[in-house]
Amino acid sequence: MNQFTTQELAEHVSGTLVGASALDITGVAEIREARPGQLTLIGQKKFVALWADSRAGAALINRDLEAQPGPGRALIQVASADLAMAQVLELFQEDPPDAPLGVDASAIVHDSATIGKDVSIGPGCYVGPNVTVGDGTVLYPNVTLMDYAEIGERCELGHDCILHTNASIGADGFGYRPAMDTPGVTKIPHIGNVVIGDNVEIGANTCVDRGKFSSTRIGDGTKIDNLVQIAHNCRIGRSSLIAGSSAIGGSATIGDSVVIGGAAGIVDHLTIGDGARIAARAFVIADVAPGETVSGYPADAHRKTLRQWALLRRLPDLLMRS
Amino acid sequence: MNQFTTQELAEHVSGTLVGASALDITGVAEIREARPGQLTLIGQKKFVALWADSRAGAALINRDLEAQPGPGRALIQVASADLAMAQVLELFQEDPPDAPLGVDASAIVHDSATIGKDVSIGPGCYVGPNVTVGDGTVLYPNVTLMDYAEIGERCELGHDCILHTNASIGADGFGYRPAMDTPGVTKIPHIGNVVIGDNVEIGANTCVDRGKFSSTRIGDGTKIDNLVQIAHNCRIGRSSLIAGSSAIGGSATIGDSVVIGGAAGIVDHLTIGDGARIAARAFVIADVAPGETVSGYPADAHRKTLRQWALLRRLPDLLMRS
Amino acid sequence: MNQFTTQELAEHVSGTLVGASALDITGVAEIREARPGQLTLIGQKKFVALWADSRAGAALINRDLEAQPGPGRALIQVASADLAMAQVLELFQEDPPDAPLGVDASAIVHDSATIGKDVSIGPGCYVGPNVTVGDGTVLYPNVTLMDYAEIGERCELGHDCILHTNASIGADGFGYRPAMDTPGVTKIPHIGNVVIGDNVEIGANTCVDRGKFSSTRIGDGTKIDNLVQIAHNCRIGRSSLIAGSSAIGGSATIGDSVVIGGAAGIVDHLTIGDGARIAARAFVIADVAPGETVSGYPADAHRKTLRQWALLRRLPDLLMRS
Repeated sequence: MNQFTTQELAEHVSGTLVGASALDITGVAEIREARPGQLTLIGQKKFVALWADSRAGAALINRDLEAQPGPGRALIQVASADLAMAQVLELFQEDPPDAPLGVDASAIVHDSATIGKDVSIGPGCYVGPNVTVGDGTVLYPNVTLMDYAEIGERCELGHDCILHTNASIGADGFGYRPAMDTPGVTKIPHIGNVVIGDNVEIGANTCVDRGKFSSTRIGDGTKIDNLVQIAHNCRIGRSSLIAGSSAIGGSATIGDSVVIGGAAGIVDHLTIGDGARIAARAFVIADVAPGETVSGYPADAHRKTLRQWALLRRLPDLLMRS
Repeated sequence: MNQFTTQELAEHVSGTLVGASALDITGVAEIREARPGQLTLIGQKKFVALWADSRAGAALINRDLEAQPGPGRALIQVASADLAMAQVLELFQEDPPDAPLGVDASAIVHDSATIGKDVSIGPGCYVGPNVTVGDGTVLYPNVTLMDYAEIGERCELGHDCILHTNASIGADGFGYRPAMDTPGVTKIPHIGNVVIGDNVEIGANTCVDRGKFSSTRIGDGTKIDNLVQIAHNCRIGRSSLIAGSSAIGGSATIGDSVVIGGAAGIVDHLTIGDGARIAARAFVIADVAPGETVSGYPADAHRKTLRQWALLRRLPDLLMRS
Repeated sequence: MNQFTTQELAEHVSGTLVGASALDITGVAEIREARPGQLTLIGQKKFVALWADSRAGAALINRDLEAQPGPGRALIQVASADLAMAQVLELFQEDPPDAPLGVDASAIVHDSATIGKDVSIGPGCYVGPNVTVGDGTVLYPNVTLMDYAEIGERCELGHDCILHTNASIGADGFGYRPAMDTPGVTKIPHIGNVVIGDNVEIGANTCVDRGKFSSTRIGDGTKIDNLVQIAHNCRIGRSSLIAGSSAIGGSATIGDSVVIGGAAGIVDHLTIGDGARIAARAFVIADVAPGETVSGYPADAHRKTLRQWALLRRLPDLLMRS
């Protein structure tokens, strides 16, 4: 187990140490659960009150919050305790024990798949024919990477990607045409592929469908949370974040550095500009311009939505008055 | 197959038998599908009309509904036919044939995992290093229980839990910090764990993420439906119910005996008090007090939401009048 | 790889060929990605502008759009380029390479399961005791088909069905009754089954729960997208379409030829009539008549919802005026 002194931690996060400087810290924990020898976090005013009773040896604290270390304990003042904690966690993290290099004996990797260096493919994974997996990529247990398209390019997964358990990559899109002589519909063949860039993370039980005849694309550095639906032919840019339980309709174009909140929905064929922000649960039915922030049902500029919500709450009074 | 007389069933549910008392009942079925020798359910007025044409031998019926058994058939009058049926189903249920004790040959259970007595671990499951699984717990096929945190406590699953197929427990939370020298974000290590109490049920394809550096906790007796997202650091109390397709944001605190309807959403860091009720599809963006019932988008007290919906329907008239 | 001339393709889709008739086409691609020898699609006005710079050899184009083929290239005019492309994709599709006939060595299929002819059961699948799988059905990797009900009928899957990766069929429904002597709830046994018709497609990570004591039914020709929740006792008719991330509550009855948009929600026990259309994200809390189109939160007739949304946008002005 890694161990650092409070002094070393303060230097690592460029913080100001108050109190004990030679305290050995062997781990981190939430303020109500921390034990002596552990570091905790005071990022909001309500946690200041808990500090006196906490057994934690030290805490990262926002510079604008006031607290005393107390005897034998230390505070490390920083601009953002949240951000500093992220840096500390990197110190404490060892090599993940749950992602051993290589292909687990129970995984099925087709002979024609191309697997890069330093790849970890967990138990129960399936990697179909001709799929390409880049260097340093981790597939946690029970991930499915479906086969390449029959015509066109192979499914590709860049380097240093992380795919969490039960992710489904490359299933057919949801596309049908009216049946000719019978009621109901006929399946449209999906012969496109999925192309995932470098440093992409895809959450547990998330689905990315293959394109109908071109590619569903996810750009470098984009991170997708759990239980997200990415429909066929979506093109998602670089360094975007898509939170859990969101659903992106077919052929949507999402720009670079877009942030999509939890359980948001974007209907088919829309374009979301670079740097746009989609609030949690927003129901987006029209294009969103670059840099714009939208929320609501249906989504509108966030300040308009807030105003509408405020009016709705006052609606009984307003209508009675009129 | 188990078999009971109508008299025995009436006694089991403390009901009043009307009609044939010695009829052998070998199963239960919906009123339109039931055959002679099967018991059905009349819990609403609309099912009374279907009783005459039903082939069912007997029915549990709400005491406030009127029907005649007819020749050779029986009615069992009870306060709640729904509740009585639940009791009858317990009589008819034998040991589940789909959850044989032991670890299926195709499951991967790490040597360092601690597995209790009378546990069933189904085909394709993965149980990582140092995970603890309590006595009497059932893992249906293809469940994934990720590894313990590197520092801190192990992932724990209490006794008599049920995890349904394709559940993902212990994947990393969705947490990133701005990258230093490049565009985009850097992954924050998640070194916390998941602690699940006793008698917890987790639905198919549901995800419970590990804490960032503390625990994601699910209390004793809590039941979670399918396709639910429980983000990192959530603390869910005892005996709460979370219906399908809901999404709970990171670090949310859900009390005891909370009921959350289907496809509801709760944003990050909120506190939902004991006994609160969140309606289906509610979008909760503020704390909910103990015992309160909320609904709507965004969620508000249920009676306010109902009033708002009524006004919205009348809005064209109201605005025209003014 | 299949190859067709532009003339052959025009005849196949009953279109009018303009330009090069003997051009060999070996594949299809999106207009910005297509290479010489590939066919693309011009289904909207905005793609006409891209045609001149596209490297595609030929394009299917809606008859009401104007474009010139250019030297050595071809346009095929059709009523609907989308529909024509679906027909072309069927020409180019060969036997899916990712669904080899037979049972993969890593799949678990119980001895008592009944498996039809020409079935493909992929890696990591689980098919429980007494389950019936019809002829020509494909189970992609890691699909779980739980066991038959103890009493009552077996779980059945019709012929020519497709189940995508990580689908969970036949898990217990979410049903509990108040516990007698303790706080919390007691699980109601679910001893019903799932009956899936012919030509049904079920998306990746979608869940279909077994009935409480009767059947959860999905009719012939119905197609369900990814991450959809179908709760216990639902009865879904024939040739209906349910888009991704939707959630259907317990005991709901969905008619024939119903179309449900993405991420829609239908609460328990409702009836949705034949041919009804539920818009994306609609929150349906009341029965929907046959042929009706509903949208909104809560859902109402689509034209009323559109009017309400328009009024809400104007609400600040309208209230200020009054």
